[in-house]
Amino acid sequence: MPQRYRAMFINSLSGYKSANLVGTSDSDGNTNLSIVSSVFHLGADPALMGMIVRPASVRRDTLENILSTQSYTLNHVHPEIYQQAHQTSARYEQFESEFDVVGLTPAYESDFHAPYVKESKLSLGLQLREHKTLEINGTEMLIGEIMWVNVIQQAVTEDGYIDIESLQSICISGLDGYHTTQQISRLEYAKPDLKTREKENWK
Amino acid sequence: MPQRYRAMFINSLSGYKSANLVGTSDSDGNTNLSIVSSVFHLGADPALMGMIVRPASVRRDTLENILSTQSYTLNHVHPEIYQQAHQTSARYEQFESEFDVVGLTPAYESDFHAPYVKESKLSLGLQLREHKTLEINGTEMLIGEIMWVNVIQQAVTEDGYIDIESLQSICISGLDGYHTTQQISRLEYAKPDLKTREKENWK
Repeated sequence: MPQRYRAMFINSLSGYKSANLVGTSDSDGNTNLSIVSSVFHLGADPALMGMIVRPASVRRDTLENILSTQSYTLNHVHPEIYQQAHQTSARYEQFESEFDVVGLTPAYESDFHAPYVKESKLSLGLQLREHKTLEINGTEMLIGEIMWVNVIQQAVTEDGYIDIESLQSICISGLDGYHTTQQISRLEYAKPDLKTREKENWK
Repeated sequence: MPQRYRAMFINSLSGYKSANLVGTSDSDGNTNLSIVSSVFHLGADPALMGMIVRPASVRRDTLENILSTQSYTLNHVHPEIYQQAHQTSARYEQFESEFDVVGLTPAYESDFHAPYVKESKLSLGLQLREHKTLEINGTEMLIGEIMWVNVIQQAVTEDGYIDIESLQSICISGLDGYHTTQQISRLEYAKPDLKTREKENWK
């Protein structure tokens, strides 16, 4: 397969991916913003999130900011900001802030270094806990611990589940496909001796 | 936070997750099937896929089969099989095959050990390349190389992008939310000096 075709094809195979903006700033407070589709849940206690960064494709300054300040935010993307989110993947000069260029607003939690995206409806602050270079292909894996979460209380249901569809969070297919979602259901915890059941009042 | 509430809440934070069934079999050919939402793209060349397995929550025999045979498949979940897919997360006895219990059909590619799911509309065969235990929380990371892909040709567009929405692939929120998708758009490769543009004929 030709290289571009191959990248498109292989990137489609894992299924839908989360759409997050990574907010960082250097030690002087110069901000950076970068879209990523490679964030994954790693554990609830401690609350850990993994992220794969490909040196060749993601803003190098985002990675450098995380390594030097240990601080970054993740911000869910919704339809009103998805074009701006996508535009952060362009190769701007190092002195340019993607916040300014694409028109998103940096905001701050007290005592936390990295900026979050004011327009996002779900933001979290992470502290870097581990950084590994995966020798198999030179990608970087970052593991962060969740320090705070910004989300409206109405989106959090009684059992702790966050109705991210009500926040209009979107997902990504391949390298450039963006999708809203429509919930089919929530299912009860599966047990061998019970039929699969929908949760009551899931909607 | 209480443990269950915390698990629900933290699992919702990364955003939408892919929905895949992992097909394996032991050296005697006894099959296993397990739903996972932790698959992530790792690189296109070589074509690598990552997957996080939590020993406490995922069928231990799936992990053991992968480690002993080096072979597994991933199979996208669609609305007609999502309840069966969810049911594979129940703790069946080791001698029971989730294929049989939930009513999905194992099928085989020639010269490939692990079974795929016949009812799935996109399946891939992986060979294990790396296995790391993440010391930070004891989860297991598996990295596999894609050996083959089963998908209808009509879903693959000219540039290599796979229209997984046309395959009705679904995504997951939190621990038990299932969603279909509705594509907003595909966007052109972003460049600093150009406005964000939709791809022509993306639909």
